[in-house]
Amino acid sequence: MDKRRYFDWAATALPLPSLGDIDIKNTFGNPSSPYAEGRQAKEALEKARSRCAKALKVPAECLYFTSGGTESNALVLHSLLLRPKKVKFLYSAVEHPSVRENCLVLEKLGFSPAIIEVEKDGRVSPEILSKALAKNPDARLAAIMAVNNETGAIMDMEGLSKILRAKDGAPVHFHGDLVQAAGKIPLDIRSWDLDSASFTAHKLGGPRGIGLLYLRKPLEVLYSGGGQERGIRPGTENTSGALALAACLEQYASPDAVKLEQEKARQRWGHLIGGLKKNPRALLIPESRTEDDLRFSPWILQARFKDVPGEVMVRALDSEGFAVSTGSACSSSSPDRPVLEAMGLDEHARLEGIRISQGWSTTLEDIVALLEGIEKALAFL
Amino acid sequence: MDKRRYFDWAATALPLPSLGDIDIKNTFGNPSSPYAEGRQAKEALEKARSRCAKALKVPAECLYFTSGGTESNALVLHSLLLRPKKVKFLYSAVEHPSVRENCLVLEKLGFSPAIIEVEKDGRVSPEILSKALAKNPDARLAAIMAVNNETGAIMDMEGLSKILRAKDGAPVHFHGDLVQAAGKIPLDIRSWDLDSASFTAHKLGGPRGIGLLYLRKPLEVLYSGGGQERGIRPGTENTSGALALAACLEQYASPDAVKLEQEKARQRWGHLIGGLKKNPRALLIPESRTEDDLRFSPWILQARFKDVPGEVMVRALDSEGFAVSTGSACSSSSPDRPVLEAMGLDEHARLEGIRISQGWSTTLEDIVALLEGIEKALAFL
Repeated sequence: MDKRRYFDWAATALPLPSLGDIDIKNTFGNPSSPYAEGRQAKEALEKARSRCAKALKVPAECLYFTSGGTESNALVLHSLLLRPKKVKFLYSAVEHPSVRENCLVLEKLGFSPAIIEVEKDGRVSPEILSKALAKNPDARLAAIMAVNNETGAIMDMEGLSKILRAKDGAPVHFHGDLVQAAGKIPLDIRSWDLDSASFTAHKLGGPRGIGLLYLRKPLEVLYSGGGQERGIRPGTENTSGALALAACLEQYASPDAVKLEQEKARQRWGHLIGGLKKNPRALLIPESRTEDDLRFSPWILQARFKDVPGEVMVRALDSEGFAVSTGSACSSSSPDRPVLEAMGLDEHARLEGIRISQGWSTTLEDIVALLEGIEKALAFL
Repeated sequence: MDKRRYFDWAATALPLPSLGDIDIKNTFGNPSSPYAEGRQAKEALEKARSRCAKALKVPAECLYFTSGGTESNALVLHSLLLRPKKVKFLYSAVEHPSVRENCLVLEKLGFSPAIIEVEKDGRVSPEILSKALAKNPDARLAAIMAVNNETGAIMDMEGLSKILRAKDGAPVHFHGDLVQAAGKIPLDIRSWDLDSASFTAHKLGGPRGIGLLYLRKPLEVLYSGGGQERGIRPGTENTSGALALAACLEQYASPDAVKLEQEKARQRWGHLIGGLKKNPRALLIPESRTEDDLRFSPWILQARFKDVPGEVMVRALDSEGFAVSTGSACSSSSPDRPVLEAMGLDEHARLEGIRISQGWSTTLEDIVALLEGIEKALAFL
């Protein structure tokens, strides 16, 4: 096969070559063990935590290593099971399956989740959130992702948090899935006033099986065991994974790094969007998306091609050497597209949607090739 | 520091050097993605699953990759939350914290767990299990580990399963924590008639963050998300971890490998036990343990030294260059020793317990050095 060009970074990123340098041999000990090897591993783990904290501008003691974004989300949602009452809670209509599906399980167990709808651009607006809160005044948690994994829609986390905080009565726990935001857009966890947030390494070029949970205050969690991670996440600590995640966050998610990378990404994405707008068979999702649209992450784009099912387009581009996807890889087994449905697209349009996403090694040349590849694929469809 | 000799393999194993060969670059794709990189990753993942299945002599479709033993145990226990009724269930008094603590959380949530006591040698006898079942005829699940992580006590899994199967009424789900058994003693999941079993890679020289759950039949689980691992364990699949785990299981847990390694381990352990028996200040836990005692795994030994608190002994040996531990690393933050308590040791004796465990690179020379190190340490205590 000719050179492959990878455009599914939102599913998983290419591994960062520099991560090969991590010293696994000298940090193999169990960080809970008291002797030299254990202390050395513990020190490495805590150093990794501090480095993550610095990159994310949060206190290190608020960070807990997990096995990834899915688990971080589940830890927060399942903690509701420990509350004395089966509380009401809210989640946006465009959440990742790792939030949505756990909410549905909680519903089955007698909880009352309610959905926060989105505007046509796939974003939760302050008005919509206010309405959802007015309808559910007893809500105790709200889960809203910062960047949508299918459309790149950026939520106004600061504005939304202000609305949550202004609500009368018991406070609402604000949970943010930041998996597609870290390293992609500037984060401001403090101004966003989050109570908890999820991160994963593999979307940033790190290995699988390592993620982070930010907790402003410790939570009582369901998942129990050996008391690691101060009781929040049991299981022998993944020290080398933690070091790799720290390296990824430093390289991409620290305030300076993300600013620089985002700028370059916006330029490349502007070129892609401009090219698609010239293609008479291409439609952006939402159609209102512009070349340099600050409502959207410049790392993810959802588009469709008239009368070409997304699956067909993905296969056609695959055989041209391009990796793009229909929705989230995490829901590839289902033909449903709840995110696009929430944005008001009809079934026909939803089935046409494909996701294009870029990452740290994407070049303008890749974008030019992709636009040509799309034309070439469409010629046969 | 002089040469270190590592004797805490039950906490975590030294990384296998051969695992460096795993081709992460060509398996980085998201296995749920439909294009070439995804298919390649999926193929690697399924190949890893088949290799694990072959080593464990179970059907590949019964194996699900998880983040480790703690999670595998939790997946089974938390699945009880999905049952229509808050059922009764049993767990042995010597289970790992990842079983015990989740049982206690379930108790807090209204379930009725009951403890299966152990004999003085730390093993669940058929008589004890029969009595526990007679007392709890409505039990729907029993969790019994195959090899205890603190004493090495081997449970008669086949005999115990026969008792569970002979019970009248609704069947009992038999869950086995095999974390300290895989690669250490011959496994026979079919004869043991297990409904579910847990495994982890890092006790076998593999990386952190990857484990296995064996399920005879799919379970309805609490933890939900993108539907990976056929709905049993959500989250982007850890392909390189799965390949590493497969390599570890092939190398150590396949029937031939384990037989050979176990034989060598028994010889070394016989030497250690013989040496300790000559030391007037040393006592084995249980005291009845012999040089070649088939009741115990030859990879783990619990011992104590008269009037020397375990913590002091661990520190003294550490400064002599030896890594040994008090109980499980997973409960290092707590001075309680529930396993030793269940065996009938008084508080004073419990506090003296230390765990010595060996692994794939341990030599007879290491054992000789350890016995000398113990004498040297005791001279000052």
